[in-house]
Amino acid sequence: MATASEDSESTYEQFLDHVRRLHYVGDAGGVLNWDQQVMMPDAGTPARAKQTSAISTLHHELLTDDALADWLDELDDAELDPEQEAVVREVRRDHERATRVPADLVERISEASSNALPVWKEAKAEDDFDAFADTLEELVELRREYAAAIDPDRDPYEVLFEEYEPYLGIDTAEDVLTDLRDALVPLIDDIGDSDVTLADPFEGTYDDDTQHDLVETALDVLGYDWDRGRLDTAPHPFSMGTQFDARVTTRFTPADPLDALGSTIHEFGHATYTLGLPQEDYGTPLGDNRDLSVHESQSRFWENHVGRSRPFWDFFTETANDHVGTDATAQQFYEASNEVYDDNLIRVEADELTYHMHIIVRFEIERDLIRGDLDVEDVPEVWNDKMEEYLGIRPDTDAEGCLQDIHWTNGAFGYFPTYTLGSVLAAQLDHHARQDIDGFDDHVRAGEFGPIHDWLTEHVHQHGARYRTDDLVEEATGESFTAEHFLDYADEKYRALYDC
Amino acid sequence: MATASEDSESTYEQFLDHVRRLHYVGDAGGVLNWDQQVMMPDAGTPARAKQTSAISTLHHELLTDDALADWLDELDDAELDPEQEAVVREVRRDHERATRVPADLVERISEASSNALPVWKEAKAEDDFDAFADTLEELVELRREYAAAIDPDRDPYEVLFEEYEPYLGIDTAEDVLTDLRDALVPLIDDIGDSDVTLADPFEGTYDDDTQHDLVETALDVLGYDWDRGRLDTAPHPFSMGTQFDARVTTRFTPADPLDALGSTIHEFGHATYTLGLPQEDYGTPLGDNRDLSVHESQSRFWENHVGRSRPFWDFFTETANDHVGTDATAQQFYEASNEVYDDNLIRVEADELTYHMHIIVRFEIERDLIRGDLDVEDVPEVWNDKMEEYLGIRPDTDAEGCLQDIHWTNGAFGYFPTYTLGSVLAAQLDHHARQDIDGFDDHVRAGEFGPIHDWLTEHVHQHGARYRTDDLVEEATGESFTAEHFLDYADEKYRALYDC
Repeated sequence: MATASEDSESTYEQFLDHVRRLHYVGDAGGVLNWDQQVMMPDAGTPARAKQTSAISTLHHELLTDDALADWLDELDDAELDPEQEAVVREVRRDHERATRVPADLVERISEASSNALPVWKEAKAEDDFDAFADTLEELVELRREYAAAIDPDRDPYEVLFEEYEPYLGIDTAEDVLTDLRDALVPLIDDIGDSDVTLADPFEGTYDDDTQHDLVETALDVLGYDWDRGRLDTAPHPFSMGTQFDARVTTRFTPADPLDALGSTIHEFGHATYTLGLPQEDYGTPLGDNRDLSVHESQSRFWENHVGRSRPFWDFFTETANDHVGTDATAQQFYEASNEVYDDNLIRVEADELTYHMHIIVRFEIERDLIRGDLDVEDVPEVWNDKMEEYLGIRPDTDAEGCLQDIHWTNGAFGYFPTYTLGSVLAAQLDHHARQDIDGFDDHVRAGEFGPIHDWLTEHVHQHGARYRTDDLVEEATGESFTAEHFLDYADEKYRALYDC
Repeated sequence: MATASEDSESTYEQFLDHVRRLHYVGDAGGVLNWDQQVMMPDAGTPARAKQTSAISTLHHELLTDDALADWLDELDDAELDPEQEAVVREVRRDHERATRVPADLVERISEASSNALPVWKEAKAEDDFDAFADTLEELVELRREYAAAIDPDRDPYEVLFEEYEPYLGIDTAEDVLTDLRDALVPLIDDIGDSDVTLADPFEGTYDDDTQHDLVETALDVLGYDWDRGRLDTAPHPFSMGTQFDARVTTRFTPADPLDALGSTIHEFGHATYTLGLPQEDYGTPLGDNRDLSVHESQSRFWENHVGRSRPFWDFFTETANDHVGTDATAQQFYEASNEVYDDNLIRVEADELTYHMHIIVRFEIERDLIRGDLDVEDVPEVWNDKMEEYLGIRPDTDAEGCLQDIHWTNGAFGYFPTYTLGSVLAAQLDHHARQDIDGFDDHVRAGEFGPIHDWLTEHVHQHGARYRTDDLVEEATGESFTAEHFLDYADEKYRALYDC
């Protein structure tokens, strides 16, 4: 007869086999998506949609499997070590959320989002919000229903937000976003009033091959592991993969090579996080990344705190000049990388500061929509008012206003704040990495990125999803999640750049 | 209350949903494989193996699902139209074979093949058959066990052969292979005795870009639908996809651009079959290809009966000269495309005639192994004896002999004959297409391949797997499957080329 501990060992092993299988199926779906974005001819869409949906359904069935419920019940009382407890915690959370949502609601949301896509595209092309209003109303209602299915007693926006960021807490998110709004609006105002014009060393256009070589070289020098990845182009850059194979995509803006460079370094940060996860734990939460805020902190760390720093340009200027045929100084590239666009209406074209205003507008609107405090018909006006209030500009069209992003069409409410939380966490990690790494800037100036990789691997990557996000932040930095470092960084950097 | 016919309609619809899902999951696995062969860095292998295995397992579970068994039972007595009957016939066959094989045997075979791969590679590299003998013995035994699980009362080789070619019959296969052996051995002898030396217009080496442009142009002129496909390179060329997206891969031999050209046209034939399947039936046997022999007939049709024909070279010579910088005549390219290598030991480098001798050697050996009429330890000697008997050459090493192919290591016994059956069927289709298409050769000379596409689509592609293979051959050609046309074609073409 098996002892109690042998029993739970065996339950845990069976549970873990199932968890791995679930993970492998999810990653297979990731490969289908990468192929669709990067390689597939458009005509392949109908078949790929069927394949992707079949894989999603199987994933959902594995996640809501009764056997998994039974194992989780049994493991409730089992003696587990901290790693096992972490695995059970993460899987239980996903399982419980998935089982609470009725299958037909999942299907209705999926169908509504599919149907919404052409409606949104048409409405955006025609600058006709009214044509999208009923669809948006339906998507909001479905997501409210979704949140109620998961927990009818809690704020529905909080529940949705936790889909993307489970452990930082909606209160923290609101506080951080409010702090940023209060601090950045006057800073951006001052920048707008500044007489300083930052350098722009670029003229004319730069062909794709030139830009491809530039960003490939950047990946090289930053230490991208080409043996475990690849670089391709995609209409909307993203990264995809596992700790065995994490790929980067990019795209090129003819007039501005820094656009591709920043975007590539951003995706490099995502891929580098993935590549730093422990290989031996592949398939379990211990070998999986933490959620969106942490992922975004890794991309923003490399994009902003390395790639947009003056020391980086001290190192990379000669290479950049050689590639694109400019004759710029490090300071000129540094300035060009950090120009603040206070008249820009489009989120994805925003700089490091105004970006967060774009996020805050979306966050406040989607929160109020989901909470029932805002009617869909009022979205355009509220959007435009907020843009005016926070950035001093008012969109002329809804196409450049509340219709610009795909997120709501996809049914993703609660996602936007994680972009800002990621930037804020990047600054917090940067602050502490600089305390731990002697001569951080000297290393960057010398093109020695190994110590930074090592620090991020040791403090973030190697832990996978072992710690809750809040605990991971504590573990990595010795303090709670805070906007303080981001605000200091922004103030110091941009007041110096704009002499304001 | 539902009427009987409504009941069976509803059963059929549920059954069909399941069948489609099964198919989508299988195709998802195909995308993972394409990515692995074409795009994935090698380091991705451990994770990809897990993902692929998880998808295979889910596919197997869907195929052996009790619900599917129940639907098949119910549909046994249902009134179905001929299309529905065809769908049920194909799914029943796959389901029954899959359910008869115990899961643990499937796993043991999969494991044994995985383990066999490095052993075979090492044995081949070291030219040490003894190091592989026990592994081969195990693979043979496992496949005998597999055949017995499916049907213990039938010839195990026949059962295995039907895995790849279910409807032509092992007797037909044996007759065809024997006919070819009897007819081609003297023809190849005569060619060997001929004083004719065929032209070789190539000198030196040709870089990958040059060859890539050449084969891309060939795909263009042959009518490859680039909107539903793409061309990439792979170590072992193959094609993959659906009627919405069917891709071609190729590889380049520096000294011989005709190698890549023939291989690309071969894969084009496979892809063109896939692209000709009805889109509205995607996910069911009506929208799926027939088995390996028919697939191979499509690749061989384009590769040999078009691409290696004199009319094709009348059309393509100028283009080829322009690309590779030769100054050859159509006759010279025609000769170079059709040289018979009677001293070649390697199957994949064989020409249109000796290829089948390579197949016959493998067929006779694997058949006798599986039937228990040949011991593994005797394989090298029997292989060498047969090579000497059929081709007049004897390998010096087992690396160039019985260790050269990966098929047995993969556990694939019964696969080899389908290569020859495909070539034979290609000639039969070619014979009848020429009767139906006025001025077949004139069309080819003019680069008008539309009528050939149309004929193949009408007679083969559009039917999917609606007909059994033997019935499809009857339907397409008005006669049973026969080697007669291949033998006539081979005799006429090669006796003219070699003046013998």
